[in-house]
Amino acid sequence: MLSPTTLTAAFDRVTDYWSPKVVGRVNDQLLKVAKLKGKFVWHAHDGEDELFYIVKGSLRIEFEDGPVELSQGDFLTVPSGVRHNPVADEECWVLLIEPASTKHTGDEVTSRTRSLDEQLS
Amino acid sequence: MLSPTTLTAAFDRVTDYWSPKVVGRVNDQLLKVAKLKGKFVWHAHDGEDELFYIVKGSLRIEFEDGPVELSQGDFLTVPSGVRHNPVADEECWVLLIEPASTKHTGDEVTSRTRSLDEQLS
Repeated sequence: MLSPTTLTAAFDRVTDYWSPKVVGRVNDQLLKVAKLKGKFVWHAHDGEDELFYIVKGSLRIEFEDGPVELSQGDFLTVPSGVRHNPVADEECWVLLIEPASTKHTGDEVTSRTRSLDEQLS
Repeated sequence: MLSPTTLTAAFDRVTDYWSPKVVGRVNDQLLKVAKLKGKFVWHAHDGEDELFYIVKGSLRIEFEDGPVELSQGDFLTVPSGVRHNPVADEECWVLLIEPASTKHTGDEVTSRTRSLDEQLS
């Protein structure tokens, strides 16, 4: 029997900022939840869009041509190859939708980079 | 400049029950919003999962081995090929995520079937 997931409850698995956890899948895309606070890392995902949906709080995504502000309940797809840097002035809860192949920080590897195995744990 | 979409405001485009409207895209998957009320049609989507996220209200999805109840804030992926029938006792707002190729009612074509062109209009 299939069992639904309550989106807000799925955040219970998240214990660290900037450390997404996989909570669902539809076709070749993974649904991940993450808690964000502070500035992340400028990066891009070549060949892969990344959708941000704001579950709680607000998020500013910096792009090379300026920032976009997302409020609770907003979503935005960052197109493939577009460099961006998420910045959360206060704690923000996001749902991410992206392919299983997406690397957390694109080709930028930092101490904050989380592998897919870490995201599945 | 990219512009976010407010999920609840996207339902303004929906004027009829069971008539999804495309409001976003991530990679090869479309995001669609729909207002549901009553019983739909038993169908399956071969080769394509379909995700339901309940934005407002509640939804029962009937499966051949029994119903699953979804409340506001829940999501469920109906796996490819699994026959199902959504039933909303009261008006329910859902976000659907499915491939652009997904047919509204699978291989069952009824007066309620909406083409992708209708979903994009």
